[in-house]
Amino acid sequence: LHCTSMSSLSVPPPQCLLQPFTVPHRYLFGPGPSNVPPRISTAGAQPMLGHLHAETIEIMDHIKSGIQYAFQTQNRMTLAVSGPGHAAMECAIFNTVESGESVLIAVHGIWGERAAEMAERIAKYKPVLFFLTHGESSTGVLHPIDGIGELCHKYDCLFLVDSVAALGGAPIYMDKQGIDILYTGSQKVLNAPPGTAPISFSERACHKIFNRKTKPVSYFLDLSWLANYWGCDGKPVRSYHHTGPITGLYSLRESLAILAETGLENSWKQHKDVAEYFHMGLEKMGLKLFVQDKKARLPTVTTIVAPPGYEWREITGYIMKNHNIEISGGLGPSLGMVLRVGLMGCNSTKAHVDMILQALADALKHCHKSKV
Amino acid sequence: LHCTSMSSLSVPPPQCLLQPFTVPHRYLFGPGPSNVPPRISTAGAQPMLGHLHAETIEIMDHIKSGIQYAFQTQNRMTLAVSGPGHAAMECAIFNTVESGESVLIAVHGIWGERAAEMAERIAKYKPVLFFLTHGESSTGVLHPIDGIGELCHKYDCLFLVDSVAALGGAPIYMDKQGIDILYTGSQKVLNAPPGTAPISFSERACHKIFNRKTKPVSYFLDLSWLANYWGCDGKPVRSYHHTGPITGLYSLRESLAILAETGLENSWKQHKDVAEYFHMGLEKMGLKLFVQDKKARLPTVTTIVAPPGYEWREITGYIMKNHNIEISGGLGPSLGMVLRVGLMGCNSTKAHVDMILQALADALKHCHKSKV
Repeated sequence: LHCTSMSSLSVPPPQCLLQPFTVPHRYLFGPGPSNVPPRISTAGAQPMLGHLHAETIEIMDHIKSGIQYAFQTQNRMTLAVSGPGHAAMECAIFNTVESGESVLIAVHGIWGERAAEMAERIAKYKPVLFFLTHGESSTGVLHPIDGIGELCHKYDCLFLVDSVAALGGAPIYMDKQGIDILYTGSQKVLNAPPGTAPISFSERACHKIFNRKTKPVSYFLDLSWLANYWGCDGKPVRSYHHTGPITGLYSLRESLAILAETGLENSWKQHKDVAEYFHMGLEKMGLKLFVQDKKARLPTVTTIVAPPGYEWREITGYIMKNHNIEISGGLGPSLGMVLRVGLMGCNSTKAHVDMILQALADALKHCHKSKV
Repeated sequence: LHCTSMSSLSVPPPQCLLQPFTVPHRYLFGPGPSNVPPRISTAGAQPMLGHLHAETIEIMDHIKSGIQYAFQTQNRMTLAVSGPGHAAMECAIFNTVESGESVLIAVHGIWGERAAEMAERIAKYKPVLFFLTHGESSTGVLHPIDGIGELCHKYDCLFLVDSVAALGGAPIYMDKQGIDILYTGSQKVLNAPPGTAPISFSERACHKIFNRKTKPVSYFLDLSWLANYWGCDGKPVRSYHHTGPITGLYSLRESLAILAETGLENSWKQHKDVAEYFHMGLEKMGLKLFVQDKKARLPTVTTIVAPPGYEWREITGYIMKNHNIEISGGLGPSLGMVLRVGLMGCNSTKAHVDMILQALADALKHCHKSKV
């Protein structure tokens, strides 16, 4: 049992790792992640820096400005969580809600379900937070935001919006719309790799968070630490909290730079125009859109009623195999009912729409159709 | 207040993002992150794939095998957390400990302090877990592991080891040493970017975790979900839990491949030899090692007694400015007492030692020395 004398390894080097590493190119037209353009992947391959080096801190400051622009907010408490959108969801809920408090959640798809799943672990009795998904990628619905913040504040409730699937592709104005916490992911319209999640907190949210009676359950997501790490707390020195995904931040910086160069309004218009062109093409083919109200359609992720008589998995599989294109089935409540097509950021072009329409037509021709 | 008619943006595109993005090259000889070799950064710049595509799942399976080799374990419950080492720490503690239970933590540096900080948020009364840091990077101490697992199990306590700063650079045998949970980071000896954290759970740990009375506080880090996402639960279908850091997984795959090609024992010997060569050189210069017992010295991160009469910040600043090399001061309990030099993975070479010794000699010559 004295392992200093253990000289032999009981687990040998795995053969699978001794093979060369290759990754195919694929069109990612599902609900995300989307394709990463060379400028963003090249940025992520730049030399590593320390997580608190002056240059890294400058990159983080630029990211903050980029998020403030993308979110249309002047909140000082703006940063990127070192994890996927789900980590930002927990960051929002963990910091805001104390045990014994309750949360109101608009469940109109899987994202509301998941927020409920997170909140019920810590909160039971009193409503302090209202959660709404801006772009519900499971159903393809874009939820209106206007007026809700005002209503929430009337009842001393914070307004939390998940815009993972919509941000950059549909208008949102954090400050003007009275949103207290807003977050998104890096791998959708922003076209960066998954692993960073922009988030911002209003003064009202900060007031609640920094007057908690108990510590948030998570240290990793504790806003007091994150605020200092991201230089949002006005303190002169940034302490070491955790090591952020440094090269992920390089990529996020570039993706926000591309959005700033393009202009938010141009990006919103591009997604709207391309989505409408796509929807027209689908209807011409005889396919039905799952969301009938045009205004309620999410411009980033389109849900198509699963073509009757077909097995949806056969369609997505056929398109992947023969066209090298990912499109996806439903998720959660929409499973089996829809096909989902995401056209986000650099993927949102009419040329891509034409590719998808052709692939769908080909699939409907070749996939097995039941006679029922 | 009706924002559908808001046509103007109140936050303009930030000028800082319109500048070109550049990152300097720097020798990262602090306690981490370490430099990323081209093979690993190139892997991370490969085309994006979907998080549940067959190729991604195969990459995840290869990563599991690579972690099993690096940890010397046959645990089925082996995966990488989608976050930094701190997320793995919380994954270990959140899943294992229920409210009302208590945790025993060996505090011999900052990592023990942080684990205590995390555990006290959820646990109060009964010891079910013993936490030990294998390589305490704040003090430069390598803690012996032998015999502790046996002792823990005698008292029906799980044995949790943090090997973020040591894994791959110092021997550890998860199965033979009776370790129930072991985790590390990607950005130390493995030389991958930060953002993924290998972790493994023994059968004993899984038994405790999957017989909890309450859900873990975190959904993002809930092992029942992670086990399914990583194909560790034997179920035929992997559900969507969260979007993993796909390109981060590419890099992690390559870093584990390099370790498998090098061989664990060669890697351990390399770090030991280079550290000893470094320590000899330091002593020749008249510098003192902070850890006097040679056997207790961490081969990946060396702590040097802060040279008397100097301001340590002036030394690290001088070396960064004039030699483009990062070395670091103390952290937590060792702040102000030591200089810390990390030589991990591809950075662990005698040529780098010579560079550092030269830089240190130069700094001691040029930095201000008080006469006291």
